[in-house]
Amino acid sequence: MAKIKAGVIGATGYAGLEIVRLLLSHPFVEVEAVSSVSFEGQVISEIYPQLTGIFGETLANDAAVVDRCDVVFGSLPAGLSEPIARRCFDAGKLYIDMGADFRLKNEADYKQWYGKDYADPALHEAAVYCIPELHRARLAGAKLIGNPGCYPTSVALGLAPAVKAGAIDPATLVIDSKSGATGAGRGLALNTHYTECNEAFAPYKVAAHRHTPEIEQTLSEFAGREVRVTFVPHLLAVNRGIVSTMYANFMPGFDLAAVRKLYEAFYREEAFVKVLPDGAVANLKNVKYSNYCHISLHADTHTGRLIVVSTIDNMVKGAAGQAIQNMNIALGLEEDAGLRIIPPAF
Amino acid sequence: MAKIKAGVIGATGYAGLEIVRLLLSHPFVEVEAVSSVSFEGQVISEIYPQLTGIFGETLANDAAVVDRCDVVFGSLPAGLSEPIARRCFDAGKLYIDMGADFRLKNEADYKQWYGKDYADPALHEAAVYCIPELHRARLAGAKLIGNPGCYPTSVALGLAPAVKAGAIDPATLVIDSKSGATGAGRGLALNTHYTECNEAFAPYKVAAHRHTPEIEQTLSEFAGREVRVTFVPHLLAVNRGIVSTMYANFMPGFDLAAVRKLYEAFYREEAFVKVLPDGAVANLKNVKYSNYCHISLHADTHTGRLIVVSTIDNMVKGAAGQAIQNMNIALGLEEDAGLRIIPPAF
Amino acid sequence: MAKIKAGVIGATGYAGLEIVRLLLSHPFVEVEAVSSVSFEGQVISEIYPQLTGIFGETLANDAAVVDRCDVVFGSLPAGLSEPIARRCFDAGKLYIDMGADFRLKNEADYKQWYGKDYADPALHEAAVYCIPELHRARLAGAKLIGNPGCYPTSVALGLAPAVKAGAIDPATLVIDSKSGATGAGRGLALNTHYTECNEAFAPYKVAAHRHTPEIEQTLSEFAGREVRVTFVPHLLAVNRGIVSTMYANFMPGFDLAAVRKLYEAFYREEAFVKVLPDGAVANLKNVKYSNYCHISLHADTHTGRLIVVSTIDNMVKGAAGQAIQNMNIALGLEEDAGLRIIPPAF
Amino acid sequence: MAKIKAGVIGATGYAGLEIVRLLLSHPFVEVEAVSSVSFEGQVISEIYPQLTGIFGETLANDAAVVDRCDVVFGSLPAGLSEPIARRCFDAGKLYIDMGADFRLKNEADYKQWYGKDYADPALHEAAVYCIPELHRARLAGAKLIGNPGCYPTSVALGLAPAVKAGAIDPATLVIDSKSGATGAGRGLALNTHYTECNEAFAPYKVAAHRHTPEIEQTLSEFAGREVRVTFVPHLLAVNRGIVSTMYANFMPGFDLAAVRKLYEAFYREEAFVKVLPDGAVANLKNVKYSNYCHISLHADTHTGRLIVVSTIDNMVKGAAGQAIQNMNIALGLEEDAGLRIIPPAF
Repeated sequence: MAKIKAGVIGATGYAGLEIVRLLLSHPFVEVEAVSSVSFEGQVISEIYPQLTGIFGETLANDAAVVDRCDVVFGSLPAGLSEPIARRCFDAGKLYIDMGADFRLKNEADYKQWYGKDYADPALHEAAVYCIPELHRARLAGAKLIGNPGCYPTSVALGLAPAVKAGAIDPATLVIDSKSGATGAGRGLALNTHYTECNEAFAPYKVAAHRHTPEIEQTLSEFAGREVRVTFVPHLLAVNRGIVSTMYANFMPGFDLAAVRKLYEAFYREEAFVKVLPDGAVANLKNVKYSNYCHISLHADTHTGRLIVVSTIDNMVKGAAGQAIQNMNIALGLEEDAGLRIIPPAF
Repeated sequence: MAKIKAGVIGATGYAGLEIVRLLLSHPFVEVEAVSSVSFEGQVISEIYPQLTGIFGETLANDAAVVDRCDVVFGSLPAGLSEPIARRCFDAGKLYIDMGADFRLKNEADYKQWYGKDYADPALHEAAVYCIPELHRARLAGAKLIGNPGCYPTSVALGLAPAVKAGAIDPATLVIDSKSGATGAGRGLALNTHYTECNEAFAPYKVAAHRHTPEIEQTLSEFAGREVRVTFVPHLLAVNRGIVSTMYANFMPGFDLAAVRKLYEAFYREEAFVKVLPDGAVANLKNVKYSNYCHISLHADTHTGRLIVVSTIDNMVKGAAGQAIQNMNIALGLEEDAGLRIIPPAF
Repeated sequence: MAKIKAGVIGATGYAGLEIVRLLLSHPFVEVEAVSSVSFEGQVISEIYPQLTGIFGETLANDAAVVDRCDVVFGSLPAGLSEPIARRCFDAGKLYIDMGADFRLKNEADYKQWYGKDYADPALHEAAVYCIPELHRARLAGAKLIGNPGCYPTSVALGLAPAVKAGAIDPATLVIDSKSGATGAGRGLALNTHYTECNEAFAPYKVAAHRHTPEIEQTLSEFAGREVRVTFVPHLLAVNRGIVSTMYANFMPGFDLAAVRKLYEAFYREEAFVKVLPDGAVANLKNVKYSNYCHISLHADTHTGRLIVVSTIDNMVKGAAGQAIQNMNIALGLEEDAGLRIIPPAF
Repeated sequence: MAKIKAGVIGATGYAGLEIVRLLLSHPFVEVEAVSSVSFEGQVISEIYPQLTGIFGETLANDAAVVDRCDVVFGSLPAGLSEPIARRCFDAGKLYIDMGADFRLKNEADYKQWYGKDYADPALHEAAVYCIPELHRARLAGAKLIGNPGCYPTSVALGLAPAVKAGAIDPATLVIDSKSGATGAGRGLALNTHYTECNEAFAPYKVAAHRHTPEIEQTLSEFAGREVRVTFVPHLLAVNRGIVSTMYANFMPGFDLAAVRKLYEAFYREEAFVKVLPDGAVANLKNVKYSNYCHISLHADTHTGRLIVVSTIDNMVKGAAGQAIQNMNIALGLEEDAGLRIIPPAF
């Protein structure tokens, strides 16, 4: 069978490069073209020497990637994706957007948080936002996928079963997330300068992170009513991984045992989401470099709160891996093709 | 003036060694004797080579330390401090306990969390628990000080002004804390084995940490009624520092501006607690190796919550530094003597 | 085709677990059995939670592993491998030893460095020591493989072409190596306690490391005469990777350009060893989690020295990956089967 | 006694800030003025929040610093120091240059490595290069000090006794150094971007680092003839500290015991340089944040080489601390005033 031709736009950013890396091991896909505004014309292994002798593609321009490929992944800063998406859409090609431009259903939210209107509204009508374990069915026939953000993925997977079942009071939700520094990308900044980030720890964008409306969008769907959350991200001095520690009051009639049953049932058939056994605690080291999500469940019985800990690799399940999972579903491939990576223990 | 003779029991543990280190720079104190059960008879600089050519004391036994010193710091595992404290008490010497044996006023709490009764209840009557900025007056005439725990110090300093003023609803308090690995001490364990702790992150003792009753004890005092909190600590892959991110609903009539005024007034005269200006975020890197506590205040206006971030060096303000601060007050010395350490920027 | 049944003895140590992880992705092998003296009877994913839902084998005893498998990997402390190797040998099964028991051809060296005699000398006659790029032909018909050590692999790959060609004076060889902490294994020790290893750096076993005779054995082969080296390892605060920086005087008639040609010719056909282009510097981050070796070549023209930098992942090319590479060759499989792992960029 | 007024030019760079930090604890000096081209007019604690409530000076321009102070420390990029030095010199003020402009006696070396001629040669005549333990006497009457570089300090302290005594063959010297990331300063660069530097390790500027001529200048003085060395620096994923591992052949008649005696005699009276006892290994963690240098001595008897390991904190003994030590000597203060910092153990 001829391999599917995939291309990556913005291939020298961290998310873009991670897609390249994963696709290079995908059994049914070949990386046909890659582009980069900053490095066009250079060989990608000069930028990323770990590709030496493995992948020596020259970085093209964005249009060439669209023209040569069946599937296009776009890893671009917010606000730049519409023209690429349109070009793909008109050519009938599957476009998967890694950024935030096609995630929010409510244009007012997009405008509030990203400061722009939609220039091409029809695209947003066509766009599908999909965390596979929560929205898999949406992908039938999809041609434009708004791939979820990293924090929202960890949060939504960690809370959906409880919110859907009405086991917790959404009005009491507090989400304290911690992300490794790859989440900030390859762009240089003082807070990710080694000596400023190492042996440091702090929150950032306290209750003001752009992922908040995306989190609320999904939780509201599952709750069946508007949910507002307090969301505080922190920068962690590790390369990869997100841990979201989430707190909410139990609703009457629910306790840890009941909630555990809900989660186990909800994720029983899932290849990538694992509800850890009683007593275990989710740790990002156990999912890093993989597409897995680990969830551990805890109760504070003396205050009546459920505590959910959800961890993913922000670059894989939180970005490139989930994008490939979405592609696999949309194209009718095995959902875990190219994603059967066993997390290293250390 | 003759220097005060100070001794450290358990001087080869992390907290004990940190007291030694700080006391060696104290202008009015000399380190007269140090002890260690594990290393008795050895020279301390053989165990800690950074003391080479600086401090060459031979490790004695505990009794010798008590006998030779005016002030004794005890850094012992929970449950072992009473005999030392008694020996000091009977000899009229100031004893400062770094462990948990003299922190809890309610013996039932101690029994529940540490599994023991008080063997010498009179000592506990005499014992004073003191975070100087909150309980300074208690130290007049004190001969036995239960030095506060690291997490409780970060939490109590971060919440006391708001709780005291009734600015937040204590029933909604969620405390998400993160501590560097020195908090786990020098004892070897798998979760602090380098390759298990590096590039890892997870909570531990979820809603079951022994510092919970100590936190609740102080907050209840300030609230004037029983306060229960959800407290979840996490292990951070840094050597030093605690960040506590704390969430609670504003009470009617209070907002961020009002709370900021409360905090600024509360800490105006304090040498070591700094309320950061609007827009700044407390980061452990800015207090490490020092006795400072940085507090930043934030609001989530769309959910009506106050968010307080409080950071200290767990080994200094959270242990050895605060013990020396307590000693200074109890002995009538300048409160910041030996503690004017400027945090390194990197 | 039925898959080859492989077993791992000592599967809960770091090298053993890494073999399990890699074999689980091998297209022609299945992991049939695993053993552990410390955890016999437990499910391996309880010890290593990143295997949750992926591999749930119960840890057996060593004999069971031998009996059930076609290929056995033994990851045992020095001095314990002979009985296992004998059992495999007598049963005609391929045994690959990850430890040091079958690496040294000279029993006197073994005795000097490991303090033991060979108990079963016939096994050592049969044993083949093999770094594939240097000794591939030896594996024809091999039933007992002494898998190379991590430091010796990085050193031998980095020096063999120059030594073989007489381009450098072996008497001037200085080898300064740095290894991540996984090299020290899972056993708890003070120097790999997080707070002792983080923000620290030092050599250890200065000119006294057991890998010295193994390094000299290979270099002597390539030099055609006895070579002695100064070898100093250092502990690096990273999880994975070795960098060996190696210094030797050029022999008359050789310079950097000539040496570069030698290396490029020597490794031209190799899948896993990459000689970096002029100006590039080998960095462990570019090979971590993979079976690649990167080599960069440099000259100090004002002193007349060649400087070779060689880097591998100590757990993959320096242990488990190379063992699988050796297995592949010995069994006539594609040499890179199961090893086409693209190093992550971050 | 009125305090000496000190000023720091370039106070927001890492070395400049470290001088400020140390001077703030100096008993005989006050920080009178600080400047920064990038942040002139801002309050320094806005740039470095760890100074909140401790030091709130507004950043001035360079000329103001010179005019207001008795002693000026200049922390500037190479090539920019002459005008500042001239202004100080003409005003009779002590100027201590942290950069490279006044370190090299041979102008041709400066031109070769820094690409410039001396614009004001008279200044260079007046300039004194001084590692106190090696050149203390030079400071009598000095008004312009070229403060040594970090690598050269670690190397020269580690080798001077052996080179001076003719115990090793300088022609065989190989110097393999490793430095923490503060050595690269506060300027953003890809190799010190957190995710590129963390879990990474490599040499840089292999045999081409600008500190090479400075190293050779000092070693040549002590050898009494021209010495050329191979010097390779590496970037270490720690904030602070340099370890230099140095190799040279013993000269006939010398062995480890003899060399140890030389070192112990050489440094017997020194407050800051400690020769570790037999069997100990110098580790950067034991000197970090302090002005100490630890040296350990080792022999490779089977190749006949001496191995010296020398470690300092690159920002203190390798920069700001040594500058203050030089100031203390030049001004007739106690040499260790303001520098009696005990290294933290963790």
